[in-house]
Amino acid sequence: MSVTIPDSMQAVQLESYGGSLAVRQCPVPRPGSGEVLVRMAGSPINPADLSFLHGSYKYQKPLPVIPGIEGSGTVVAAGPGLLPRLLLGNRVACASSPTSGGTWAEYMVTSAKWCAPLQGNVTLEQGAMMLINPLTALAFIDIAKREKHVAIVSTAAASALGRMILQLGRQNGIPILSIVRRKEQVDLVHALGGEYVLDSSRPDFGHQLRTLTRQLKATLLLDAVAGGLTGQLLEAAPAGSTVMVYAYLSREDCVIDPRGLLYDHKRLVGFYLANWLARKNFLQSLQDTRRVQRLLATHLQTTVHWRLPLSAAQQAVDLYRNNMSAGKALLVANPQEIPLER
Amino acid sequence: MSVTIPDSMQAVQLESYGGSLAVRQCPVPRPGSGEVLVRMAGSPINPADLSFLHGSYKYQKPLPVIPGIEGSGTVVAAGPGLLPRLLLGNRVACASSPTSGGTWAEYMVTSAKWCAPLQGNVTLEQGAMMLINPLTALAFIDIAKREKHVAIVSTAAASALGRMILQLGRQNGIPILSIVRRKEQVDLVHALGGEYVLDSSRPDFGHQLRTLTRQLKATLLLDAVAGGLTGQLLEAAPAGSTVMVYAYLSREDCVIDPRGLLYDHKRLVGFYLANWLARKNFLQSLQDTRRVQRLLATHLQTTVHWRLPLSAAQQAVDLYRNNMSAGKALLVANPQEIPLER
Repeated sequence: MSVTIPDSMQAVQLESYGGSLAVRQCPVPRPGSGEVLVRMAGSPINPADLSFLHGSYKYQKPLPVIPGIEGSGTVVAAGPGLLPRLLLGNRVACASSPTSGGTWAEYMVTSAKWCAPLQGNVTLEQGAMMLINPLTALAFIDIAKREKHVAIVSTAAASALGRMILQLGRQNGIPILSIVRRKEQVDLVHALGGEYVLDSSRPDFGHQLRTLTRQLKATLLLDAVAGGLTGQLLEAAPAGSTVMVYAYLSREDCVIDPRGLLYDHKRLVGFYLANWLARKNFLQSLQDTRRVQRLLATHLQTTVHWRLPLSAAQQAVDLYRNNMSAGKALLVANPQEIPLER
Repeated sequence: MSVTIPDSMQAVQLESYGGSLAVRQCPVPRPGSGEVLVRMAGSPINPADLSFLHGSYKYQKPLPVIPGIEGSGTVVAAGPGLLPRLLLGNRVACASSPTSGGTWAEYMVTSAKWCAPLQGNVTLEQGAMMLINPLTALAFIDIAKREKHVAIVSTAAASALGRMILQLGRQNGIPILSIVRRKEQVDLVHALGGEYVLDSSRPDFGHQLRTLTRQLKATLLLDAVAGGLTGQLLEAAPAGSTVMVYAYLSREDCVIDPRGLLYDHKRLVGFYLANWLARKNFLQSLQDTRRVQRLLATHLQTTVHWRLPLSAAQQAVDLYRNNMSAGKALLVANPQEIPLER
């Protein structure tokens, strides 16, 4: 394979956490040992990216920095090592490394172990959104099965991830109690096949949640919101329940009455995909990404609402942030691979 | 054995949750199937009793009610069943049943399975405080060993239970990082042999806690306070830590930054002794109460500061509530068995 790699590229840059995005010409990075250079096709904006831009993600990188946690593209150069060489020339889904630049650029260097080869029938657009949400949804279903939860409460249920949890739950015979924050979202989740949907903005929400969690024996509660909702979930849940916080869209501290923990064996834990994946070996991870690809066109489908070029990154972030349940915003690095207009 | 059981007895009564205590003549209850009648010697006032009086304990009983969760005495009548008959005539440590009257009376009916026979060398005074704190301290050490925690953070460390945790930790080679809320208590815990003691009222508390938990690898944090302290413990603790809430002396909701849960595998759980004991069979529980009795005069010793008659119950509660680290307040039901003056 012979590919001409330019010296410079277009990339989105964050200059201060909480600040706005710029688009700059930057040097194309070179892969080190165990690393690959990916010519990016595109990247979604996920809630985790919003946390990163805000400065409240797991890590902060030195500024200025190229944001973007996942995406897809083609491996065009390989650093020393077997795995990088095996990936050379492959279309991949990829995640950025915690210690270098992100996916919102024309090129990205990352560890070969954060790349998953795409199967022939998976498009680069689907592949760009294949890691974070689909693997998280699979992990939740695996946790529910392993810990023998017979039903799940899912918050932010109209989100891309919420929809995947709903579909995987249906596929696996695990009832999903969906929680949304607006009336329109109730109708939306019903239309997607959700049987049990509650609107947390209603005054009788706590009572309804208590009744339904008991009726369904829903003892795994997935919390994407934090803040006051965490306490409501813990309080309403049956004895022995686990509330699992996996995001904090509210940007507020969790407030909880300790009596639920104390007397009723309830517990509050966290979920972070990278920690979950780190416990798996390479083969297990490969199997997971194959499971995901088989379901990408059906249960793990992502609706894309906006396809914008890298140069419109700030606009894309604003559009997504203001209407997160409309669908994903995709930043397109290479319009020949992911067409901007449909 | 022939014992004359009167028709009526003196008993402490709570007429409204949060209200004050009265002393009344009440009928002596009769044991049903599986139950025994205990002629009470004495009962301590524990933090759990304060929660009960306040109306915020695990359960509320119908009012008026006789309070008191644990105590000691002699089994003077037995209802139908093998276990009640075996206990007849024995001196016992006993806990009240969640569905009937408590220990702050001259007589109490309870389930035979909530009674532990006292060994010959254990006094009724020691036996009165033998269940809640000593079994809780043992449970914490057992949990630390089973989950392979190499050091423990203990809050409210000057309390009766805090002292037991310190001594059992020393006995088992598990360093205890003690947290207290006042300068005098720092000196007190040092005098009891505590090596690592922090005062949570100091401005540099969070920083010191962070440094020491990492140095000691203290990944089990026992929280008796709740409120803001829970969040401080979670934030300061090393990745992978468990914060275990077992009381909420602050009477405030826990406030926690969800990022510790999310990114660093930390978790928040509760501990309630009755749930812990319910998982054990009769033989295991008997072994536990024997272990406790062997250590009652040494590592699991309780300092009694006030010995007051049942008629002074309200005064005893007030004295204890206002200076909980001075020692226990003991309500004496039978001054022939537990002398009021020393």
